[in-house]
Amino acid sequence: MSAPILIYGAGGADANLFYATRFLTPDPYIFLEQGGRTAVVVGDLEVGRAREQATVDRVVSQSEVEARLRERGIGKPGPVDVILALLGRTRRVSVPASFPVGLADQLRSRNVCVEPRAGVFWASRAVKRPDEVRAIEASQRAVEEAVEEAVEVLRRSKVRSGRLMYKGEALTSENLRRIIDRALLERDCAARDTIVACGDQGCDPHQRGDGPLRANRTIIMDVFPQSNRTRYFADMTRTVVKGQASPQVKRIFRAVQEAQAFGISRVRAGADGAVIHREVQDFFKNAGWRTGPVNGKMEGYFHGTGHGVGIDIHEAPWVTPRGGTLEAGAVVTVEPGLYYWGVGGVRLEDMVLVTKTGCRNLTRFPIFLEV
Amino acid sequence: MSAPILIYGAGGADANLFYATRFLTPDPYIFLEQGGRTAVVVGDLEVGRAREQATVDRVVSQSEVEARLRERGIGKPGPVDVILALLGRTRRVSVPASFPVGLADQLRSRNVCVEPRAGVFWASRAVKRPDEVRAIEASQRAVEEAVEEAVEVLRRSKVRSGRLMYKGEALTSENLRRIIDRALLERDCAARDTIVACGDQGCDPHQRGDGPLRANRTIIMDVFPQSNRTRYFADMTRTVVKGQASPQVKRIFRAVQEAQAFGISRVRAGADGAVIHREVQDFFKNAGWRTGPVNGKMEGYFHGTGHGVGIDIHEAPWVTPRGGTLEAGAVVTVEPGLYYWGVGGVRLEDMVLVTKTGCRNLTRFPIFLEV
Repeated sequence: MSAPILIYGAGGADANLFYATRFLTPDPYIFLEQGGRTAVVVGDLEVGRAREQATVDRVVSQSEVEARLRERGIGKPGPVDVILALLGRTRRVSVPASFPVGLADQLRSRNVCVEPRAGVFWASRAVKRPDEVRAIEASQRAVEEAVEEAVEVLRRSKVRSGRLMYKGEALTSENLRRIIDRALLERDCAARDTIVACGDQGCDPHQRGDGPLRANRTIIMDVFPQSNRTRYFADMTRTVVKGQASPQVKRIFRAVQEAQAFGISRVRAGADGAVIHREVQDFFKNAGWRTGPVNGKMEGYFHGTGHGVGIDIHEAPWVTPRGGTLEAGAVVTVEPGLYYWGVGGVRLEDMVLVTKTGCRNLTRFPIFLEV
Repeated sequence: MSAPILIYGAGGADANLFYATRFLTPDPYIFLEQGGRTAVVVGDLEVGRAREQATVDRVVSQSEVEARLRERGIGKPGPVDVILALLGRTRRVSVPASFPVGLADQLRSRNVCVEPRAGVFWASRAVKRPDEVRAIEASQRAVEEAVEEAVEVLRRSKVRSGRLMYKGEALTSENLRRIIDRALLERDCAARDTIVACGDQGCDPHQRGDGPLRANRTIIMDVFPQSNRTRYFADMTRTVVKGQASPQVKRIFRAVQEAQAFGISRVRAGADGAVIHREVQDFFKNAGWRTGPVNGKMEGYFHGTGHGVGIDIHEAPWVTPRGGTLEAGAVVTVEPGLYYWGVGGVRLEDMVLVTKTGCRNLTRFPIFLEV
C-alpha cells in the first residue's frame, strides 16, 4: 500500500493543499489522504466553514483530537502529536518537496518515515479539467478587459514634451497599473506586481515600472491576476508604443511576434518544454538577435519561454531549460521577448491550452504595437 | 562559529527572506549569511534588479556559478550544487523551520548538516524598527480610510424590506468588500479576503460573507491589506449595525468593547500573550458569556485574542494559547469577539505597539455600533 499523503500549509498559500481541499485559510492546517480517504484537521475557528467548503471525506476538529491527547497525558499537543494520532499505526508519509523541514524532522524523531516527493506533487495539477480551464479563461477575460482599459487610456493621452498626459496630469506607470488593477478588482481578481514598464525599465523583465510614461517608447504591460473566487490565475503581456515606434523597435517587435507565433506552433501534446524553449532561443539567434551581458547587464533573450498557469502563477510544465512533457490539457504561456538597453524591451505573452494536435490559444487580445 | 544561515524561497512569499533582503521575486532564490556577510544567488532575470534593491553584501549570478560547475563536470547543476559551491568547506547550515524538506534532504545526502531553527527565525522581526512601525501605520491609515468609505455607504443606504439599498440597488457583502478593496488599491494596498459578514455569517469568523446586507443586523468588517510597496500589513475590525441594534446585540457589543479595552490594558513589555488571552477569555466568562459548541457549531469566544502584524499578517508574538513574551516594539492586534447563532457576531480589533509601560494604539478609527 502506498504511503499516506500528508500536507501541512495554509489553504490560501499552498497550491497543492488548495488543489486537494478547495479550502482557503490564512493559517496552516493538516491534510491527510490515507487508504483513499481524505481528511483535514482544522481549529475551532475553521471547522464550520471546512465542513461546508472542503472537498474532503472528513473534517476533524483539532481541539477534539487535542482534548483526547491531553486525556492520554500529552500536556501540550502540537501538530506532530495530532498527525501521529491520525496516522494510527502507519509510520510512513509522502509529502510535497515544499513540506516544512522543521515538522518533517519532528515526525522523523518520532519514527515516522517522511518521504518528500521530487518534482510535481499532484501530477494531475498539470492537466486542467474543463472547470479549471473555464476558471483560467474567466481570469483571462478579466485581464483582457483590464488591458483594454489601459490601452484606451494610452490612446486618449496627449503628449507634452515627450511625456504622456491624461486628463491634464502626467500619466505614470503607477497610474496605469492602478487603472489595470482596479479593472481587475471590479472583476473579482487580485493583482500583485502588475508590470507597466516603459523604455529601459522594460529591459529588466521583472521590474514593475515607475515614473512618467514616455511617448515613442516601448511600454510593457504584463498582467497576471488571481481570481479571488476560483483562485486560478491568468497571464498576458502586451507591448505598445504611444506615438511612433522607432524602426529598431519595429524590427524587434516583429521578431518577437514571429518568435511567439513560432513558439505557439511548436506546442502540442508530447512536446518537451525545454526543447521548445531552445527552439525559440535558436529562432532569435538565427534571426541575428544577440543575447548576453553588455556592461554587466543582460540583453537579448534571457528568460524562459513559458510556464504552466493554474492555482500558482508559475507551475509545471515549464517551457524553460527545466522543461517537462506537455500533456494535453496543460495550460502554458508562450512569452518570448527581446531587451536592449537604450532601445527598450518587447515581450508578447499568450496563454494556450495544449491539445493532441497543437494548442488552443486562450488569449483573444490582439497584438499591435502603436496606439 | 555559528552555522551559516540558508533560506530558499520566493521574496514575494517568504517573509523571512524578504525581511533579510527586501528583494521581491515571484520565483525562489538562495539567501546565505556566512561569517556575517549576506549574499543572494539569483538568475539572469533578477540580477540587475537584485543589485539595485537587495539589502545584501553580495549578489551572485546563478548562471555564472552554474557555468563554473559545468566546467567542473557537473552536467545539470541544481540549487544543491549551487549552495554547496557557495558554502565552501562548511557543511552545516541553519534554516527556517519552513525550509523545504526536499531540498534539505538533498543537502543532507551531500553531507550537509541542515538544522531547522524552532519557532521564530529572525527574533528581531517581532520588534519593529521605527521605519517598520511607520510602514504599518501607513497601511493602517489606508484601512481606516477604506472602512470610513464603507461606513459612509452604509450611512447613505436606504432600507427596503429589511435589506440595504444603495444607489437603487441591493447592497451586498460583495459590493461593500469591493468598495473597501478599491479604496485600499487607491492607496497602493492589496487586500485578500476582506471580510464583510452580516448576521449569522459573522458567526463564522473567517467567512468572507456574501449576499444582501440586512438592516438591524451585525455587519463585521475585518480589513487586513498589505502595502504593495513596503509589504507591511495592517489589521482592523469593526462591527456595525445599519438601523437599530437589538438589546441583545447591544449587550454583546458592550461586552466585546469592554473586553477589548481590558485586553489592551494588559499589553505591556514583558507580558505573556498566552496569559493575556486567558485573561480575556476569563473576562467574558466572568461576565456570563458562555463559550462552547451548540448543535455542533461553536458559540461565544473561541478564537485567539491577537497576533503580531508585520510582513506576515499573522506572525509572532501570539496573543493566543501559543503565547510568547511581548517585547517593547512588537505590534499586535487585540481582537476579542462574541458570536451567537441567530443573534450575530461582534468583533472589535485594534492594532497596538507594545511599550515598556503599556502600549500605543496605532488605530485611530472610532468604535461605534449603529450607523
